[in-house]
Amino acid sequence: MPSDLYAVADFCLIPIGTGESSVAEYIAECQRVLEKSGLTFKMHGYGTNIEGPWSEVSQAIHDCHAAVHAKGAPRVATDIRIGTRVDRDTPVGDGNDHKVKRVEEILARDRAAAS
Amino acid sequence: MPSDLYAVADFCLIPIGTGESSVAEYIAECQRVLEKSGLTFKMHGYGTNIEGPWSEVSQAIHDCHAAVHAKGAPRVATDIRIGTRVDRDTPVGDGNDHKVKRVEEILARDRAAAS
Amino acid sequence: MPSDLYAVADFCLIPIGTGESSVAEYIAECQRVLEKSGLTFKMHGYGTNIEGPWSEVSQAIHDCHAAVHAKGAPRVATDIRIGTRVDRDTPVGDGNDHKVKRVEEILARDRAAAS
Amino acid sequence: MPSDLYAVADFCLIPIGTGESSVAEYIAECQRVLEKSGLTFKMHGYGTNIEGPWSEVSQAIHDCHAAVHAKGAPRVATDIRIGTRVDRDTPVGDGNDHKVKRVEEILARDRAAAS
Repeated sequence: MPSDLYAVADFCLIPIGTGESSVAEYIAECQRVLEKSGLTFKMHGYGTNIEGPWSEVSQAIHDCHAAVHAKGAPRVATDIRIGTRVDRDTPVGDGNDHKVKRVEEILARDRAAAS
Repeated sequence: MPSDLYAVADFCLIPIGTGESSVAEYIAECQRVLEKSGLTFKMHGYGTNIEGPWSEVSQAIHDCHAAVHAKGAPRVATDIRIGTRVDRDTPVGDGNDHKVKRVEEILARDRAAAS
Repeated sequence: MPSDLYAVADFCLIPIGTGESSVAEYIAECQRVLEKSGLTFKMHGYGTNIEGPWSEVSQAIHDCHAAVHAKGAPRVATDIRIGTRVDRDTPVGDGNDHKVKRVEEILARDRAAAS
Repeated sequence: MPSDLYAVADFCLIPIGTGESSVAEYIAECQRVLEKSGLTFKMHGYGTNIEGPWSEVSQAIHDCHAAVHAKGAPRVATDIRIGTRVDRDTPVGDGNDHKVKRVEEILARDRAAAS
């Protein structure tokens, strides 16, 4: 068992107690932190895909919390989905994209069969 | 207060007890269910963005569970992130994309300022 | 397949844009809503266990959002974990407790074996 | 900003690809791992409350994944809720319980006012 499992993850961070209903400035701050982390990440409508060694993914999300606190949020809550597997190697940086591709291939077969 | 709040959501469904580590066939089945729901949705690496009236979003995810059970999974667990707001109207079908655009605009200003 | 699967769930609701870092008053408001729902629920340190027919669990959480908006939160975000199973019946109102008991029985065997 | 924020968290781990719908043996294995971590934790019906320095909470959940893989699960997916705050100190080991107490005090006032 590797001592630092490769993690394919996704997280959604919410600043609490800011007095403003917009969270975009805080999420932008997270994106800047992730840019510096060197990890593969990609924002979507309700969170951000991220992957890498577990400890680095965890550290990157921790640093997002620290940056959002520094920007004025007294409290921050995050939901993280994180997965690991030992049945096969995950191509580094391609774990999340690979999952999407697999599903799209199956759906493409549907369309091919229907046409 | 509307009796059926507009919900901007994201969910990640996991089949349990299938005896196979791949979940792609089950996720593809969900995508077929969502296609029929008529709601706006978009798959990403660790879940699927979806939005619409709360009751319809909930029903669509319920129907994904039913379809994944019908496909053989004895047990299904899903993580749902769901948000509502009453400070302004969410353009129907554009709630998740709008959030991404707002963050990207802020990051684009960073790049403009840096150049 | 039942048209309304029995759901064993847990949710954590977060008010956004309130200007106060404490969320206790909003969570208390949710507990009042759940009390009226007639469903089995139990608060813990980072959310609330709840179970019942899927549509009723969903409606109860929707009504928590509506109540928290009415109390002044412009935006509300919730993380829901929800599970269904078709391999056996879940005793109504005992789904979450049953899972805890099963794990505790296993751990009790550890202690019996060690003593 | 502390370099290792104090984290109040909750997680729900799911083994994938095990061929059995019961997850109790895997969750029991996690509880054994957490026992060794020295952190404050408490299982409930849909997850486990846990708290401590962010890096230690993250490591404990990582080690649960490793243990569940070692027990035979080819793939493991976890949902983590994690919160930090900088407006006041969290009493070590009392973050989750403190939140419950605050809500229960408010609800007790309801009952006192009603009687």
